[in-house]
Amino acid sequence: MAEPGGHADDAAVLHRDEAGIEFSRIVAFSDGVFAIAITLLVLTLQIPSDAADLDSVLGKQHDDLFAYALSFAVIGKFWVSHHRFYGALDRFDNRLMWLNLLYLAWVALVPFSSDLLGNYGEEPVAVIIYAANMAGASLTFSIQIAYAYRRGLARDGATEQRRYAGPANYILGGVFLLSMPVALVNTFAAQAMWLLVFATGRRAADRLARIGA
Amino acid sequence: MAEPGGHADDAAVLHRDEAGIEFSRIVAFSDGVFAIAITLLVLTLQIPSDAADLDSVLGKQHDDLFAYALSFAVIGKFWVSHHRFYGALDRFDNRLMWLNLLYLAWVALVPFSSDLLGNYGEEPVAVIIYAANMAGASLTFSIQIAYAYRRGLARDGATEQRRYAGPANYILGGVFLLSMPVALVNTFAAQAMWLLVFATGRRAADRLARIGA
Amino acid sequence: MAEPGGHADDAAVLHRDEAGIEFSRIVAFSDGVFAIAITLLVLTLQIPSDAADLDSVLGKQHDDLFAYALSFAVIGKFWVSHHRFYGALDRFDNRLMWLNLLYLAWVALVPFSSDLLGNYGEEPVAVIIYAANMAGASLTFSIQIAYAYRRGLARDGATEQRRYAGPANYILGGVFLLSMPVALVNTFAAQAMWLLVFATGRRAADRLARIGA
Amino acid sequence: MAEPGGHADDAAVLHRDEAGIEFSRIVAFSDGVFAIAITLLVLTLQIPSDAADLDSVLGKQHDDLFAYALSFAVIGKFWVSHHRFYGALDRFDNRLMWLNLLYLAWVALVPFSSDLLGNYGEEPVAVIIYAANMAGASLTFSIQIAYAYRRGLARDGATEQRRYAGPANYILGGVFLLSMPVALVNTFAAQAMWLLVFATGRRAADRLARIGA
Repeated sequence: MAEPGGHADDAAVLHRDEAGIEFSRIVAFSDGVFAIAITLLVLTLQIPSDAADLDSVLGKQHDDLFAYALSFAVIGKFWVSHHRFYGALDRFDNRLMWLNLLYLAWVALVPFSSDLLGNYGEEPVAVIIYAANMAGASLTFSIQIAYAYRRGLARDGATEQRRYAGPANYILGGVFLLSMPVALVNTFAAQAMWLLVFATGRRAADRLARIGA
Repeated sequence: MAEPGGHADDAAVLHRDEAGIEFSRIVAFSDGVFAIAITLLVLTLQIPSDAADLDSVLGKQHDDLFAYALSFAVIGKFWVSHHRFYGALDRFDNRLMWLNLLYLAWVALVPFSSDLLGNYGEEPVAVIIYAANMAGASLTFSIQIAYAYRRGLARDGATEQRRYAGPANYILGGVFLLSMPVALVNTFAAQAMWLLVFATGRRAADRLARIGA
Repeated sequence: MAEPGGHADDAAVLHRDEAGIEFSRIVAFSDGVFAIAITLLVLTLQIPSDAADLDSVLGKQHDDLFAYALSFAVIGKFWVSHHRFYGALDRFDNRLMWLNLLYLAWVALVPFSSDLLGNYGEEPVAVIIYAANMAGASLTFSIQIAYAYRRGLARDGATEQRRYAGPANYILGGVFLLSMPVALVNTFAAQAMWLLVFATGRRAADRLARIGA
Repeated sequence: MAEPGGHADDAAVLHRDEAGIEFSRIVAFSDGVFAIAITLLVLTLQIPSDAADLDSVLGKQHDDLFAYALSFAVIGKFWVSHHRFYGALDRFDNRLMWLNLLYLAWVALVPFSSDLLGNYGEEPVAVIIYAANMAGASLTFSIQIAYAYRRGLARDGATEQRRYAGPANYILGGVFLLSMPVALVNTFAAQAMWLLVFATGRRAADRLARIGA
């Protein structure tokens, strides 16, 4: 018998109806990290230090703005997927909370990688770090999804996530991993791979899910 | 049949009573972005680097304080409108979440534009960027409202938003767009336009709504 | 007839049971601002730029740590009072939301004033700015409380707030205002006044409330 | 008779079912501080100032990345414990809110100590400050737990927290205190102590709890 708060044991599984505040704290904390990470992206844009530099500094911000837009879209996408995934969950346990923290550690790194990409988008090392960050986030998210389904934390009948979000995230993570050696040869090609997977990923994954259904 | 969490399909529409945590996550995430953006404005105020500069640096902060007050009021207004708009919604779908993210990307930019305006309020380029940021926020908010009504996401009988908030935001966005060429001629006149629409906008929109009712 | 979300009119008053998500968004947004402002205080502590300065920079941080502790306690106190005040409310309207935003604009300024105080605690201008910030917060909070009671937004029988929190905040604001001219003569005496009101304020106000009851 | 919001008296104890929004504001505010502190850790990573430094600066970030990972895990652990503790509570009073704020003041300091540790991990003073920060957080958390049980704020039958979390936190705090003199002799040994208690702490505490049960 699992009662809210009585989970001294790591194995205890709690239902969101029994432990409403506790379940919603997990998503609230996650939302906090997503919201802060996405809003800190603005700190990557540079304020010129004097009026003489104004036009030249602002004129060179197209890379920064590209990084801002890309990272906002990526964190936004992570958040939408997280929202969808937790919408399919009915229960949580201690290990899920730790897997979620592991995932959030990658999400919270994005403002750093994004700043690097905005400033040094033509340097292979910056592109590789950005791709590694995204691959880390995608793969730890997949692990979290796989764990939740194996442990039976999802609501009955919610099978779309397993069939769909899991594979979609492995594909996403795989493309980011693949783009890392590509960046050594051509940083532009690596970034084009990301945009491509971003533009087509949604549709491809939906098709996959429909074929499976 | 739409069940919470079962929305693998983009077209799925969920009701806030079916998917309470999911609905409230959207507003919680939005509130997080609003709260962070509004609190990051304080970072635009400068701390003098040594005591000799204290009076001179603080004495020149009136522009920064004007930008802080203006941007706090503007983000506050955006938040109140967002609060009002989501109060009129009963349902959400995936596309609304993305339109909301697109809108929040403009809101999260405000600390940057505001810092620019506080430091370079007399330079046309800073005023134009600030106006473009506000126009972007107003117009993407209008799009979100229009979409929600077209898709029937609002609660029955909640027509004020459509008749009132939509047009009010187009007017707001239009004034910001208009102020951009004005800033090329006179930055002070452009900023006066913003204050004017801010001071009268509320009342004008209320009158519009009452005429329509 | 007031329905949630149907408040196009400024005069509309909504009850927290009718508009649960809307009521809780106001406190959630406020909590966000409080939490961010209190956590941004840490940015006022300085990281030495090289190991040679390590001991000397850290050794001179007692002023910064005093400012951190004081400001954490002050924002904490503001938050506890806000929590208590909204706990006594049953209803809200548009004007209360704006008065709350006006109050939060002062709360969000604290990291700036606190940084100034930590660096220049012996300069009258820094002490005066800190005191002005606190006086602004206290007085706008009093206005918010007075408005809510006059408009009948409090729950029936919740009279402690009116009899107690209102006057307590005027006293607090008054002491901060008084400390401003004192700072011109002696910055230490001004800061001692704050600590005194902080240490005794709670008890004095409780006594007041009990006399009134 | 305690009614929500009627708690002018410090001694008033409120139940989470009576004062739902008020109870959840405490955890929401705490979650906000945790989420912000954990996300601010990213600001401790350095962006090289020009492309020539790119490899050398990034190559020297292993200390920063160690500090990021350690501090993310530590704040994550604090959050999981806080989540578990508040899950066992049914009631709160004014003093608990202040003890919680005292605890959060230590949590919010972590980005500072972590930045120091990342930059000066071989200097005893940086290691000592980090350990002091963690000891302060652990011990004030223990005090909060002890207070809640003595005042009867926990739900009936929730005894695991008392038997388990309290002692576990004293052990954690004690190890951090002990590591402070060790750091004077060997900073590496001090950090190894932390990792050891982190890796074994969970299991040791669970064993303790099971023996007690």
